[in-house]
Amino acid sequence: MSTVLLADQVLTLDAKGTIYTPGAVTFVGTEITAVGPPPERPTGEVVDLRGCVLLPGLVNTHTHTPMWVFRGLTEDVPRGEWLTGRLLPLERRLGPDDLRRSALAGCLELIGNGVTTIADRYGHMDAVATAVEASGLRAVVGHSLFDRSAESDLARSEQLIERLGTDPARARVWAGLAPHATDSCGPELLRRVRRLADRTGARVFIHLAQSESEVAAVLARGAAGCASYLDALGLLAPDVVVAHATYLTDAEADLVGARRTAVAHCPSCNAKLEGRVAPVARMRRAGAVVGLGTDAACCNNGMDLFDEMKVAGLLNKVAADDPAALPALDILRAATSEAARALGIDHLVGTLEPGKRADVIAVRTRGAHLRPWHDPVANLVYAARGSDVTAVFVDGRPLLRDGRLVELDAERILADATQVARELADARG
Amino acid sequence: MSTVLLADQVLTLDAKGTIYTPGAVTFVGTEITAVGPPPERPTGEVVDLRGCVLLPGLVNTHTHTPMWVFRGLTEDVPRGEWLTGRLLPLERRLGPDDLRRSALAGCLELIGNGVTTIADRYGHMDAVATAVEASGLRAVVGHSLFDRSAESDLARSEQLIERLGTDPARARVWAGLAPHATDSCGPELLRRVRRLADRTGARVFIHLAQSESEVAAVLARGAAGCASYLDALGLLAPDVVVAHATYLTDAEADLVGARRTAVAHCPSCNAKLEGRVAPVARMRRAGAVVGLGTDAACCNNGMDLFDEMKVAGLLNKVAADDPAALPALDILRAATSEAARALGIDHLVGTLEPGKRADVIAVRTRGAHLRPWHDPVANLVYAARGSDVTAVFVDGRPLLRDGRLVELDAERILADATQVARELADARG
Repeated sequence: MSTVLLADQVLTLDAKGTIYTPGAVTFVGTEITAVGPPPERPTGEVVDLRGCVLLPGLVNTHTHTPMWVFRGLTEDVPRGEWLTGRLLPLERRLGPDDLRRSALAGCLELIGNGVTTIADRYGHMDAVATAVEASGLRAVVGHSLFDRSAESDLARSEQLIERLGTDPARARVWAGLAPHATDSCGPELLRRVRRLADRTGARVFIHLAQSESEVAAVLARGAAGCASYLDALGLLAPDVVVAHATYLTDAEADLVGARRTAVAHCPSCNAKLEGRVAPVARMRRAGAVVGLGTDAACCNNGMDLFDEMKVAGLLNKVAADDPAALPALDILRAATSEAARALGIDHLVGTLEPGKRADVIAVRTRGAHLRPWHDPVANLVYAARGSDVTAVFVDGRPLLRDGRLVELDAERILADATQVARELADARG
Repeated sequence: MSTVLLADQVLTLDAKGTIYTPGAVTFVGTEITAVGPPPERPTGEVVDLRGCVLLPGLVNTHTHTPMWVFRGLTEDVPRGEWLTGRLLPLERRLGPDDLRRSALAGCLELIGNGVTTIADRYGHMDAVATAVEASGLRAVVGHSLFDRSAESDLARSEQLIERLGTDPARARVWAGLAPHATDSCGPELLRRVRRLADRTGARVFIHLAQSESEVAAVLARGAAGCASYLDALGLLAPDVVVAHATYLTDAEADLVGARRTAVAHCPSCNAKLEGRVAPVARMRRAGAVVGLGTDAACCNNGMDLFDEMKVAGLLNKVAADDPAALPALDILRAATSEAARALGIDHLVGTLEPGKRADVIAVRTRGAHLRPWHDPVANLVYAARGSDVTAVFVDGRPLLRDGRLVELDAERILADATQVARELADARG
């Protein structure tokens, strides 16, 4: 049976940026079958979303859902102290089941904000993946790999690949490979990751040049920089998603672009934890595919891509010293169609077109903060917020309706994860 | 009769930053009579706001409510073109009644976001003030003064002062003096403004160094800079609120501070329209009192101080090249207690303390994006959004309850203002 979503407007984000006012999106099962003006005689289930615009579900290129419990615990930290001084002591306190419970709450937050796809990575990803699968989100998940636990991390990554596969066309949740960063992963581990990626088809996700200490550690190894280091190991490539890419020289930013690398741009996180803006304009010009990422709840401090779009615009205009830099449509694409390209799933999601998966969100436009509606793209990028999302469909399955979760028990999940947070706070004293 | 607001937590923002968990705010008429733990036997009306924290109502130091209708009409404009190239042609199309209707919608947006006090300025302020008064907001309002219409602008400013007075202790909406900017107001007009301010006690509000062309025009007059120009006219002073202060030399920023001038810091607007961050850290160190402002709906593109707090943190950390810069508590104060100081009303509002006016807001903390609640201040600054505000009281009068306007007919007001916007769009073709 078909489902027809009727709305005031549909932003397809297709190559031409087609907008239908009013508009409809029709899907059968998991697949979009029609996008256009409302049909004269709709058949099947009709969902009345008047008062809303429809968009492709947002694609978040960099998350750590299990870090939901840490929100607010790592504030205003001097540069260089965040990771080892603040985060690691917290992380050591949590076991796999804590992480699973926290991740499920994080997924709820993401769904509520209109995110339909995430690239999620952390430790104990076998447990976390269970939560992500239960949430209904589309996701690529990767178990973090470190030198210090290379053998077990590789084994767990292979198990995740066996369990979930690596093909986004065949699974709603699939596996990627997630070496932690250029300082915490030596050449031997990264060569094995590259080989495993080639053998399995898994996409590779790595933190790149997020901090000065990371850069210093890589230089101490004799590499010219974090990007050159990855390049020498075959890990600047179209099947690699580098997150942050903050501390790069111009030459290295150009190299990231020249290799057509995908970049997960996390402007709130970079500004909050490092006081910096990543050279994304330069990487894009050089050929990189840039998608937006919120990073974790304790870096941002939320996982709202609407918020992240606005922050991306403001910070990049300042970095460019040019208020015309990074126009709103480019930003909206970085949270939809380009983000899907960055994750290698643009054949499946990121636009509203027949043949694509029915990942659709509805944004209410009736609030005082979203009227008038002169410029749909600017309103979505600079004025809308996650709380304006009223409906979310992934693979045609409704996850959110009338602003409420359809299947999951939000209160129970949040209470459960809040309990983990409380134990964590108590343990810190 | 007393009213007792019971909540999970009360952030007083008093000098010590006292927080009560749980807490209560009691008021009688317009005045707070008690703040502390919940009374054992509350008397009078009890308002159950469990699931919320209470804060002082937010104070927005720079708004133009009538510009609500322009949201989305001035996007991604090259530097130097925004004001004369984009905004002025729009402004010419609107008459006083259009502005009144638009301003009322703007006030609705502000109330919904937990703002209880604004410093509002524009043309036709006699009409606009009617809307602001009807909204229930606390406000200082000023009619813009320009050289080109100096006599009539002065006359209208004096009429506004006669009608509303200049004493915030005696009126919920009172009058200020609002010379437009340092380029559009010559020395003669500004001297008359200074004299009028001295005679009436009106506070002065002026745009300062918002654009490069403003600076160039002031330099062409022979002044050393926009701030020096004002200083020579007695208009850098504790009773003057300068908005933006973006294009200042270090020496001029220090001068603004040395004179204890109040600064309306509008980080979203400065980044979006100019690609810049104002030197607020330097002005603050030198002695300036800094409050946050959203500016207008078409610059930002919203009037949400929760959003503005986050943006202020991120942009100032980047400007300082230091992630520890501008800690969250300083930001929350810049939207409450320090903003009240900037407007000269800290004896009335900006903190929750007995004797102050009952301007109180309740923020729901139960959403997935606001849990856990490890750090109330960081959660409010970096994770909360205007849509989390569920109750707003000004002078003890409820303007918003359960997220809905109590007295005003939101749908009618928004439809009315949207009609103005539609006519504007049609006229542009």
